[in-house]
Amino acid sequence: SESEPEQEVQKINQNPVEPVIHRDGDTVHIEMTAQVTDVEISEGVFYNAWTFNGTVPGPVLRVKEGDTLSFTLKNMDPDMPHSMDFHAVHAAPSKKFVDVMPDEQGTFTYPADTPGIFMYHCGTSPVLLHVANGMYGTIIVEPKNGYPTDAEIDREFTIVQSEWYREHDEEAFMNEEPEYVVFNGDDFTLKNHPLLAKTGDKIRLYVSNVGPNEVSSFHVVGTTMDRVYIDGNPKNIMYGLQTVMLPAGGSAVVEFTVTEEGDYPVLTHQLKHASKGATAILRVTKD
Amino acid sequence: SESEPEQEVQKINQNPVEPVIHRDGDTVHIEMTAQVTDVEISEGVFYNAWTFNGTVPGPVLRVKEGDTLSFTLKNMDPDMPHSMDFHAVHAAPSKKFVDVMPDEQGTFTYPADTPGIFMYHCGTSPVLLHVANGMYGTIIVEPKNGYPTDAEIDREFTIVQSEWYREHDEEAFMNEEPEYVVFNGDDFTLKNHPLLAKTGDKIRLYVSNVGPNEVSSFHVVGTTMDRVYIDGNPKNIMYGLQTVMLPAGGSAVVEFTVTEEGDYPVLTHQLKHASKGATAILRVTKD
Amino acid sequence: SESEPEQEVQKINQNPVEPVIHRDGDTVHIEMTAQVTDVEISEGVFYNAWTFNGTVPGPVLRVKEGDTLSFTLKNMDPDMPHSMDFHAVHAAPSKKFVDVMPDEQGTFTYPADTPGIFMYHCGTSPVLLHVANGMYGTIIVEPKNGYPTDAEIDREFTIVQSEWYREHDEEAFMNEEPEYVVFNGDDFTLKNHPLLAKTGDKIRLYVSNVGPNEVSSFHVVGTTMDRVYIDGNPKNIMYGLQTVMLPAGGSAVVEFTVTEEGDYPVLTHQLKHASKGATAILRVTKD
Ligand SMILES: [Cu+2]
Ligand SMILES: [Cu+2]
Ligand SMILES: [Cu+2]
Ligand SMILES: [Cu+2]
Ligand SMILES: [Cu+2]
Ligand SMILES: [Cu+2]
Ligand code: NA
Ligand code: NA
Ligand code: NA
Ligand code: NA
Ligand code: NA
Ligand code: NA
Ligand SMILES: [Zn+2]
Ligand SMILES: [Zn+2]
Ligand SMILES: [Zn+2]
Ligand SMILES: [Zn+2]
Ligand SMILES: [Zn+2]
Ligand SMILES: [Zn+2]
Ligand SMILES: [Zn+2]
Ligand SMILES: [Zn+2]
Ligand SMILES: [Zn+2]
Repeated sequence: SESEPEQEVQKINQNPVEPVIHRDGDTVHIEMTAQVTDVEISEGVFYNAWTFNGTVPGPVLRVKEGDTLSFTLKNMDPDMPHSMDFHAVHAAPSKKFVDVMPDEQGTFTYPADTPGIFMYHCGTSPVLLHVANGMYGTIIVEPKNGYPTDAEIDREFTIVQSEWYREHDEEAFMNEEPEYVVFNGDDFTLKNHPLLAKTGDKIRLYVSNVGPNEVSSFHVVGTTMDRVYIDGNPKNIMYGLQTVMLPAGGSAVVEFTVTEEGDYPVLTHQLKHASKGATAILRVTKD
Repeated sequence: SESEPEQEVQKINQNPVEPVIHRDGDTVHIEMTAQVTDVEISEGVFYNAWTFNGTVPGPVLRVKEGDTLSFTLKNMDPDMPHSMDFHAVHAAPSKKFVDVMPDEQGTFTYPADTPGIFMYHCGTSPVLLHVANGMYGTIIVEPKNGYPTDAEIDREFTIVQSEWYREHDEEAFMNEEPEYVVFNGDDFTLKNHPLLAKTGDKIRLYVSNVGPNEVSSFHVVGTTMDRVYIDGNPKNIMYGLQTVMLPAGGSAVVEFTVTEEGDYPVLTHQLKHASKGATAILRVTKD
Repeated sequence: SESEPEQEVQKINQNPVEPVIHRDGDTVHIEMTAQVTDVEISEGVFYNAWTFNGTVPGPVLRVKEGDTLSFTLKNMDPDMPHSMDFHAVHAAPSKKFVDVMPDEQGTFTYPADTPGIFMYHCGTSPVLLHVANGMYGTIIVEPKNGYPTDAEIDREFTIVQSEWYREHDEEAFMNEEPEYVVFNGDDFTLKNHPLLAKTGDKIRLYVSNVGPNEVSSFHVVGTTMDRVYIDGNPKNIMYGLQTVMLPAGGSAVVEFTVTEEGDYPVLTHQLKHASKGATAILRVTKD
């Protein structure tokens, strides 16, 4: 009844667990956790997130075209099934992207046979909740013969754009504006600790937009994109772009040159989203 | 005055009329109706729609590059002019996409000279209302020399993404979130009656996003897109995509392989839209 | 105190100042102003805009690939710093896209070394405000060897899509729907004074979507796009498109043929935005 005290909800906050990755020939064994962890999404603002390995986004994975993934998910969340959907692989979702129950684990094997930059995410229904609450990351599948520009690249960085809504509020996920739109999980780290480069460097960004809801107009101020590989496929080349359109659940390899010392903002040119956090600084100093 | 009883509005619900299509040499005669018909957009939820031929989307049309369309619109709607705008043709809109008055008909001739997958829709002003109320569909213009992959394709399906707003509420069309985002007109048919394929099949989807307002991040879970032809033009090839960005009023031919038995969700990766209905199941069984 | 009369705010409305442009060899000197000017965004509706040179969008600039820009910004706004970010150039933003204080001027030099159609805009923080209030335009960097289709083009026009929100209302910029979405600054000029062409003409549009927030699904009714160059780069060719997807801060060169006399609407196929103003008429008369 109304006069009873509210039940104390025990909020879980599990320490991040490192992923375990090792290679046996062409097979890459990846062990990751599903876990509930508080993450700082803005200075002093925490979100009780559903995560892979205690961070949002989860770990950046890197394999080679033609590898086989032997993937184990350990579900440390006591309250909820979770799962893994790699955009990079061929697999029957109803068999290999299936739920792993609380305190259980599951191992799944599939080929990473398409080169590129791919989103991964929890695929447990309703998937919107699992993604909005933080369960996503990037897997890079290096092309068998690399990119034609591999030898020229001086530095590379991985950026994931995503949205944060009112905490655990499904109505907000479905019908409201995001409170934050961020790069690599929060709105401050890539401002306070800029990406670093030297004058004249050729930079490569592995960029993914994981949504869950918004598209991205990815842009780097002060340069143009010498080459863009849509979804990271070496065959999908575009030249001299000012801005690359990323769908939700889409990626690109973005290459450009920084010719002068100074700070170069990196952002989505959907400027309300840049204002809500999706801005990074690339700091270029003398060679 | 306020004390008078509300006038009973006679809601129209016209039985679907089959389109009539026949070919004379390079001329394809197409006869369609504009009509007002209740359509089921979610289980038990009906929308008193403005339609082509009593279904939403209207009939899938299929012609060949270089054909001439001789198109007749019979307007069965007693209350409203309607019209037809084919994205596939060259024609002066002010002469050939013009209004057909209630209980009248009009015939228009134009060339279908661009290969691809195109939206058609009622172009009567305000066009937002006519599209939001259901007047759209897909016309496939087969390339003269086909697609390079024609011989490999085992099965093909047509998918149209669209939005449903609060019924006949122009303020909702202009400024609110859609209530439903759907494939082929509703949120349940392609879940209850999955698309069917066999293991190893190469699948081709003719996908259009007709909006009226939202873009689509079209994605198939469990595979990557071997080839995507943007707007269905054989010259616009992309490879290995995880997700294809579709503008409102845009299309793609999407080809991929299903390597294992099981269920493969097909969705827009703008996940709130997938949650609102835009999810289909592709069911793959043993060969 | 509350009983005091409201202070009369002196609204500024500065007369448009012409840009000054002249060429010395490969160097193009461009002098522009930042100024506050009332602009008519809908018939009888004025917005007290922050502008380049007193118009929204600002002047269309046109240079050649390989030119050096020597750009001077005179800030006539007594209350606010402004700046210039050209998407077309290589420059350290923290040095060359920097704020020019009220009543001061700054000169900056950078290479326009990427061919294409690029957005320019005020880059002063918060950039969302400066763009939402009207500080943007288009710079065309002609490719050194032109476009392969240059000889065929009969007429060309420049179109900029942008949004107007509730006047100077940052909450609206961040979280609400635009009140107007417009081509070339207002919702009426390109309807009342159509773009003009002759039957059989090949038309080229230089189209930019400057947002600040929305993407564009750019479409021409009654034709298909023979060629589209994404961001105006001659290497990024697409064929036979019905609609081209433009990110915020993105552009395209769009070429098509008008085969018959009549009016051809040009619009974003995100139809609520077309309804809010982003529709133009292309009027084709007998050759
Ligand atoms: Cu999960
Ligand atoms: Cu996914
Ligand atoms: Cu109609
Ligand atoms: Cu249309
Ligand atoms: Cu400014
Ligand atoms: Cu910009
Ligand atoms: Na593949
Ligand atoms: Na929050
Ligand atoms: Na054509
Ligand atoms: Na309804
Ligand atoms: Na460049
Ligand atoms: Na206003
Ligand atoms: Zn091992
Ligand atoms: Zn999950
Ligand atoms: Zn820029
Ligand atoms: Zn006949
Ligand atoms: Zn209609
Ligand atoms: Zn997937
Ligand atoms: Zn001079
Ligand atoms: Zn400014
Ligand atoms: Zn059209």
